[in-house]
Amino acid sequence: MTLARRLVAEGLGTALLLAMVVGSGIMAERLAGGNVAIALLANTIATGAGLVALILMFGAISGAHFNPAVTLSEAWQKNVPPGEVLPYIAAQVAGAFAGVAAAHGMFGEALFFASEHARTGPSQWWSEFVATFGLIGVIIGCSRSRPGITPFAVAAYITAAYWFTASTSFANPAVTLARSASNTFAGIRPADAPGFILAQLAGAAAATLVFRWLYPAPPANATVAGTVAPGDFIPALEDR
Amino acid sequence: MTLARRLVAEGLGTALLLAMVVGSGIMAERLAGGNVAIALLANTIATGAGLVALILMFGAISGAHFNPAVTLSEAWQKNVPPGEVLPYIAAQVAGAFAGVAAAHGMFGEALFFASEHARTGPSQWWSEFVATFGLIGVIIGCSRSRPGITPFAVAAYITAAYWFTASTSFANPAVTLARSASNTFAGIRPADAPGFILAQLAGAAAATLVFRWLYPAPPANATVAGTVAPGDFIPALEDR
Amino acid sequence: MTLARRLVAEGLGTALLLAMVVGSGIMAERLAGGNVAIALLANTIATGAGLVALILMFGAISGAHFNPAVTLSEAWQKNVPPGEVLPYIAAQVAGAFAGVAAAHGMFGEALFFASEHARTGPSQWWSEFVATFGLIGVIIGCSRSRPGITPFAVAAYITAAYWFTASTSFANPAVTLARSASNTFAGIRPADAPGFILAQLAGAAAATLVFRWLYPAPPANATVAGTVAPGDFIPALEDR
Amino acid sequence: MTLARRLVAEGLGTALLLAMVVGSGIMAERLAGGNVAIALLANTIATGAGLVALILMFGAISGAHFNPAVTLSEAWQKNVPPGEVLPYIAAQVAGAFAGVAAAHGMFGEALFFASEHARTGPSQWWSEFVATFGLIGVIIGCSRSRPGITPFAVAAYITAAYWFTASTSFANPAVTLARSASNTFAGIRPADAPGFILAQLAGAAAATLVFRWLYPAPPANATVAGTVAPGDFIPALEDR
Repeated sequence: MTLARRLVAEGLGTALLLAMVVGSGIMAERLAGGNVAIALLANTIATGAGLVALILMFGAISGAHFNPAVTLSEAWQKNVPPGEVLPYIAAQVAGAFAGVAAAHGMFGEALFFASEHARTGPSQWWSEFVATFGLIGVIIGCSRSRPGITPFAVAAYITAAYWFTASTSFANPAVTLARSASNTFAGIRPADAPGFILAQLAGAAAATLVFRWLYPAPPANATVAGTVAPGDFIPALEDR
Repeated sequence: MTLARRLVAEGLGTALLLAMVVGSGIMAERLAGGNVAIALLANTIATGAGLVALILMFGAISGAHFNPAVTLSEAWQKNVPPGEVLPYIAAQVAGAFAGVAAAHGMFGEALFFASEHARTGPSQWWSEFVATFGLIGVIIGCSRSRPGITPFAVAAYITAAYWFTASTSFANPAVTLARSASNTFAGIRPADAPGFILAQLAGAAAATLVFRWLYPAPPANATVAGTVAPGDFIPALEDR
Repeated sequence: MTLARRLVAEGLGTALLLAMVVGSGIMAERLAGGNVAIALLANTIATGAGLVALILMFGAISGAHFNPAVTLSEAWQKNVPPGEVLPYIAAQVAGAFAGVAAAHGMFGEALFFASEHARTGPSQWWSEFVATFGLIGVIIGCSRSRPGITPFAVAAYITAAYWFTASTSFANPAVTLARSASNTFAGIRPADAPGFILAQLAGAAAATLVFRWLYPAPPANATVAGTVAPGDFIPALEDR
Repeated sequence: MTLARRLVAEGLGTALLLAMVVGSGIMAERLAGGNVAIALLANTIATGAGLVALILMFGAISGAHFNPAVTLSEAWQKNVPPGEVLPYIAAQVAGAFAGVAAAHGMFGEALFFASEHARTGPSQWWSEFVATFGLIGVIIGCSRSRPGITPFAVAAYITAAYWFTASTSFANPAVTLARSASNTFAGIRPADAPGFILAQLAGAAAATLVFRWLYPAPPANATVAGTVAPGDFIPALEDR
């Protein structure tokens, strides 16, 4: 795939991801009659199911990162050329903001408006660290053992993480930036975004270190998340 | 498969799809005690799960389009012979109305009655454009890279789209027409159907253009949505 | 597999299925605070997920019918020897009652007590006809085109059918008999069971006729629902 | 894989599992506004989805037991060397407590505090027996017939078991011990833990006996739960 196609895939995929996260959050809050658990459950199911579709839709083109933390981790593992890191991240961030605007348009809101939803403090940062650690762990572990199933593993992880972390698991710097421009269910105050992003990057780095040690010998044809591989390769079992 | 078998598959599959959408909408609204989020959640889960079953049930016969927008997009990509487009669409529309009547019969309602559920305006049309753009994108992207997984990708996408679009994602002209004959949870006023259908066709056209560019070289044995292929083919990676 | 193993698998599998249906119904009704939609949603998710597990757990041994309507349809298609039909059904019915007793034991209820839950009338019978028609259609269609995915297709179908039929889709004579011995959320009055069973058998017969016509040439190694096959076989496309 | 890697995988995986179970329980209870069914539904979906991710993440390394009952059953079947049983269990228990602390940290609670949630009596013990019987049955049945799908079968089973057993299906001695240190939605009084663990071990033993009889001839390359195999092997059908 040419770089142009891959950047369009990252941008369009991240836009659809944000449209799903923000749009389903608005719909859920409007319909839930004040029960936040029901709203978050709908938001969770929409996001998890949507991720399956999006990763399968774009994975064969760009790897379906949709997330600067994933791109940086893959670049560290030499799965992404250094010169493509910034273009990938730029496409993701631009797509994320476009997706928020698309969602606001569907629900008759202004295209962008700063969030007033406070999300800060050590518990929240620890949540984002754990959330991103797990996400990167799922991607490395699954893509090195059974890459064809990675889309389902990632979506299942995020479904769980919306509930088991106190922050509802942003786990994505591009998503964090764009959600600061949405004063809805899924929003985050702009002032709180840097803390989230730092915790996410720390979690991603820790996971990359741990899971590279756990999976020591990636095969030559290892692929990034969501990319189609000839089939699940067999992990080396001889040293067991 | 003979054309007769394929048309019966499209008609019967679309009928069961509408029975699922309308029937689960009636059941959900009756039981939900006024909480629309709970009703839509049940309607969503029933529709998403039902789509998995229906696409697997009929995909090997007709491709399991159940949707004129899909048939037109596939015909544009030369996956459906021009002479079969109208028969396919006729079978889908006839099946859709039969499915609405089947659902009404199960719940003791009149077979058809015009909906009074208003769904109109730019936000709704933009929602239908986005919903159908994504649906066609999922079908093209997935069927060109991992066709065996398309049934799950399509169902996951619709599960998300019920929530992230303001229109609950009809994304299907045959479904839109038939739901105008059901004055229940899933209905739409007959007068509002043309706006939905135009937005759906525009979204399908846009997605066909974008995703044909993203996936430039379909293999000779590429199949339409839901059709079984010998296995996930490997996208050309040499130009990466 | 020996017949003994297959009968134990059918009996144990049907027992666990009933324990899931009845047990999750009791739990759901106790916790739902009177909101029937929430109770049915929990009952649905437990049943659908449980079916995936049970069909994978026993499919390679007995085919994982758990349902006399399935066994009769498979026997009609010559996938089950005539002499094994009655033993299969006996194992299913005995297992179903054992499963109801197991569930009642878990929730501190008497082992059996006749249900007072009225479920009768043309709308209910039509619902059971549609529900069983679809179930048998899913099994035949999927097992003749992609047998390895049948467990997921069947579970997805039942998940949808709990909601889109007015009867919550029993679709199984053994289940119907056993649920008449449970005066809980999932129960049915003994007097109403015969009507359900007749409608189920009619639906199964209709589906067997229709889907045998739709899938005319089963390959020699076609297997019954849930049985593991060497891989998804490729439907003949040459007559398309 | 070296033993060190496998023990880290078991410990880290069990820690994340407990973080998911306890964390999502806290979140669900806080948001559900007193409706326990909604809280348990969210807890269920988070746990089931999380299990898919965790088993895929660590299965290729350690088999993804996360459960002393699984390790003991696998050792009985000679799939785990005797000398590794205690290290596996120690890693699981240590990981389980770490996971509870991690969850409490995310939600601003003290790292450990004894639960006051009473769960005792014959109905509860029978529930744990059934829950663990089914879990071990799913693992043996699926890993001997279609090992690549085991992660989904196990997660689906637990999703059902949260609802169809009166105890919400702990089915895991390490989980039981660690949840006694959490006075939250998912907790259990320390005094009630031994009864649960005994019932779990009895259920695991019964399932190991029954399912070894049902699946008499494991192939030489049979693997434990979650381990990647070259593909679904075909059960011997010649004695059918």
